[in-house]
Amino acid sequence: MMREKLHEIIFEADTKVGRLFDIILLIVILVSVLMVVLVSVESIEARWGYHVTIAEYIITGIFTIEYGLRIYTVKKARSYIFSYYGIVDLLAILPTFLELVLAGTHLLVVIRVLRLIRVFRIFKLTRYTSASTLLARALWASRAKISVFLTAIFTLTIVIGTLMYLIEGPQNGFRSIPESIYWSIVTMTTVGYGDISPATPFGKFVAGIVMIIGYAVLAVPTGIVSVELSKLSNAKNTQVCPNCLTEQHEDGAKYCHECGQKLNRNDNMIE
Amino acid sequence: MMREKLHEIIFEADTKVGRLFDIILLIVILVSVLMVVLVSVESIEARWGYHVTIAEYIITGIFTIEYGLRIYTVKKARSYIFSYYGIVDLLAILPTFLELVLAGTHLLVVIRVLRLIRVFRIFKLTRYTSASTLLARALWASRAKISVFLTAIFTLTIVIGTLMYLIEGPQNGFRSIPESIYWSIVTMTTVGYGDISPATPFGKFVAGIVMIIGYAVLAVPTGIVSVELSKLSNAKNTQVCPNCLTEQHEDGAKYCHECGQKLNRNDNMIE
Amino acid sequence: MMREKLHEIIFEADTKVGRLFDIILLIVILVSVLMVVLVSVESIEARWGYHVTIAEYIITGIFTIEYGLRIYTVKKARSYIFSYYGIVDLLAILPTFLELVLAGTHLLVVIRVLRLIRVFRIFKLTRYTSASTLLARALWASRAKISVFLTAIFTLTIVIGTLMYLIEGPQNGFRSIPESIYWSIVTMTTVGYGDISPATPFGKFVAGIVMIIGYAVLAVPTGIVSVELSKLSNAKNTQVCPNCLTEQHEDGAKYCHECGQKLNRNDNMIE
Amino acid sequence: MMREKLHEIIFEADTKVGRLFDIILLIVILVSVLMVVLVSVESIEARWGYHVTIAEYIITGIFTIEYGLRIYTVKKARSYIFSYYGIVDLLAILPTFLELVLAGTHLLVVIRVLRLIRVFRIFKLTRYTSASTLLARALWASRAKISVFLTAIFTLTIVIGTLMYLIEGPQNGFRSIPESIYWSIVTMTTVGYGDISPATPFGKFVAGIVMIIGYAVLAVPTGIVSVELSKLSNAKNTQVCPNCLTEQHEDGAKYCHECGQKLNRNDNMIE
Repeated sequence: MMREKLHEIIFEADTKVGRLFDIILLIVILVSVLMVVLVSVESIEARWGYHVTIAEYIITGIFTIEYGLRIYTVKKARSYIFSYYGIVDLLAILPTFLELVLAGTHLLVVIRVLRLIRVFRIFKLTRYTSASTLLARALWASRAKISVFLTAIFTLTIVIGTLMYLIEGPQNGFRSIPESIYWSIVTMTTVGYGDISPATPFGKFVAGIVMIIGYAVLAVPTGIVSVELSKLSNAKNTQVCPNCLTEQHEDGAKYCHECGQKLNRNDNMIE
Repeated sequence: MMREKLHEIIFEADTKVGRLFDIILLIVILVSVLMVVLVSVESIEARWGYHVTIAEYIITGIFTIEYGLRIYTVKKARSYIFSYYGIVDLLAILPTFLELVLAGTHLLVVIRVLRLIRVFRIFKLTRYTSASTLLARALWASRAKISVFLTAIFTLTIVIGTLMYLIEGPQNGFRSIPESIYWSIVTMTTVGYGDISPATPFGKFVAGIVMIIGYAVLAVPTGIVSVELSKLSNAKNTQVCPNCLTEQHEDGAKYCHECGQKLNRNDNMIE
Repeated sequence: MMREKLHEIIFEADTKVGRLFDIILLIVILVSVLMVVLVSVESIEARWGYHVTIAEYIITGIFTIEYGLRIYTVKKARSYIFSYYGIVDLLAILPTFLELVLAGTHLLVVIRVLRLIRVFRIFKLTRYTSASTLLARALWASRAKISVFLTAIFTLTIVIGTLMYLIEGPQNGFRSIPESIYWSIVTMTTVGYGDISPATPFGKFVAGIVMIIGYAVLAVPTGIVSVELSKLSNAKNTQVCPNCLTEQHEDGAKYCHECGQKLNRNDNMIE
Repeated sequence: MMREKLHEIIFEADTKVGRLFDIILLIVILVSVLMVVLVSVESIEARWGYHVTIAEYIITGIFTIEYGLRIYTVKKARSYIFSYYGIVDLLAILPTFLELVLAGTHLLVVIRVLRLIRVFRIFKLTRYTSASTLLARALWASRAKISVFLTAIFTLTIVIGTLMYLIEGPQNGFRSIPESIYWSIVTMTTVGYGDISPATPFGKFVAGIVMIIGYAVLAVPTGIVSVELSKLSNAKNTQVCPNCLTEQHEDGAKYCHECGQKLNRNDNMIE
């Protein structure tokens, strides 16, 4: 029974204690990531480095206990461990332990920051789950269109990069084709650092055309995602009138707007 | 009666005098903000500083009288004072008074500029009110999707920032993780100052991928807002059920979806 | 009769000669603007300056004859002269004549370039007229929403500019509030020149937030225009079934899709 | 029969061997382009240049055999050779042969990179074909609106460029009108390199307005494409009239809108 209660606190958010647990965990995660980020600043490292190391041990301790409790309380420990969040939870504690063995591995800092993924746990509420499901489904539904689009962009980027390498050449900063492709990505996505920019009149002319193409092209993914989101949003209501079989009723409608027949309760709303 | 007339002039815009009052107030606000902005330019300060100080006292005087009249003419003075616009109106006169007491506080300049919020008062007409209500409701309706989206961006930004810090390192301008996160925001939002930009080939490769991700990601908020705006725009049906007074019926609805009562013809669609 | 024929050639595009006239005019306009643009390059001016001056006289001659013919052939000369295109046509010939009187006025170059507006004359075909009408109506229909949006952006820009002036100050390039407002426009619109960019950690933090706000805000005008365009596009068909009064038939439909009744011809398609 | 089998392998992707052939070809294309791109880096050229030349001969050999087999197996060799992909396939082998004759022509590198277009062959599956058809049709359907829009942008860009040339002048980097037009494209598309940026207060003021215009204008192509994509996506109804074979009926149509015939139930909606 103790185990069931713990399970409710750790995995759910509908009890008061469960919600408190979530909030505390959220704060610990944010503090731990903030520490990793800030300690990379030299002056902060010099002044607070020692304290951060201690705090890191404490936080790893907390996460280890939490990880242990999750394995203990969950019904199928195995499927939890190899689940998406199971791996994320393990990654949150691994770096500190690895550091003890491997000593001073700089790259572990990325794994430490990946803890942030655990923040998505707070989106346990239906409202958020359905929102992220909707976003994910919209992107998934448009995968064919996005693949075609990305391949086109990929090809365009390489062809334009090669062209500009020939036009501008190494003397104007376009030192090689990979560098020119980098420039064409920077330009087409409208980022525009200005670390490489065309110097010859003809190069500027071509660059101008590339920018306008990039501008027009920007409209395509937006259009794709909008349309998919719109279709999924409109497909939310699954009520069917038992009298005239009309579909697509307004959300929360109790009577059919075509014949006035009382509708059944809508049990399987998607959003 | 005098008080009622003043109330009409100050708070409403449907009489000729009321509209004139609004226009004069608008001009005074814009002039006052323009003065604050321009006097920050050294050469203008040297030449016009004294005149601006005088003008500031006069404008504060006008605003103080207006504020007094608003309190005097409004029915429930208390609820006005603590209302959104009550506080904005008070903030418009506060800085000059505080300056007399505190002397030379530079930060008050921001509060002075906040007067600009008062400009939104001119949107008293139904056309604008409904437009801003629509925009606000569209953003509010999509808050869950936007929260999920912003958390994803937040996480992505920090992970990418950390990664680039490791790849490029302090010698290429990525002096710390916070600085690298700043770079990743500058890049993902396609702002691209170019104050920090990758120098190593691998860094440029990763940066290129980050830009294309940022490009694709840009489509999501646009899609979200478009869909919500579209849904709300289409729901502008003004039919009211004669039985249960329910509003917002589906376009073309013949029966009330709340009580099954037959609806009247829809004669007054807005816009 | 000669006059009527000339009118057809000059003002319409449905005869072969009329279309030829349009194409020649289009080429002359483009050549004339290209000349103005290219001659501003010093090396071209040195080499071709004299030839361009001659060509300019010839082109002005052509435009003057054309302008005269338009006045001669049009029925109501007065209403043409003061119409939009009447003024644009006059502006096309004015600069050269003014130069003879005023001598060397540099500013006339802008008026010369305005000739380009005459290019829009080629969009006389119904397809293009309806396309531009649709775009114009979409923008006009969303004027209230766009006004509210622009006022919000205007206020936001000034408040953020003032804030950054206080945070960064003149020593980091934010020399005055107008300059800081310029920076905040450059940043919010994601242009990002990098001529002014934050240098202090706190300034970078605020800048990061401003960029993400700008990013989100970018979604709003796109959403507004999309929705209006969508509404206008969908409202194209005005057919009503004479039997069951169903509206919103498919374009070009001959029979009602609800009851099979034959529809009347659709005479007033908008697009 | 051997010829028919080869045709199936080379031109189709529904057999196992056909799919394998496609994947190998895809890899060879990508490797060949990657080589061209990487060998432009000086240090790689010095170290691997010789190997790349050899590999290039081998790949050209493979492509030549493939090209020959395509001509051999296809029914109408002539129509294949002059088809879009026929030319692309020829372009893939031409550069190496031309190099033997012409010796060291640098420009051939662009033609070499054009091989990438062959990658689009992998989108033979229905899912992708329909996706790319949909994208292409959306762009085609909005060609009138996009023409008007591009002409407007073109005019705006030139007028603004000329204006800024007069305001800023050669001393601030706006050396000629073409250069100023380049600046105005860089700014309006929100690329913002910063290689040219306004220096005078008035220039910055005008630039700020140009940026906000560019921002608003960005919404238009996105809106256009979204609306067309949305219309085409909704028109995916696959009902076919049993009487007159008309397709593309409105969703939920009960009678054919061309002949009034009752339609069958719609059983096979695609995606």
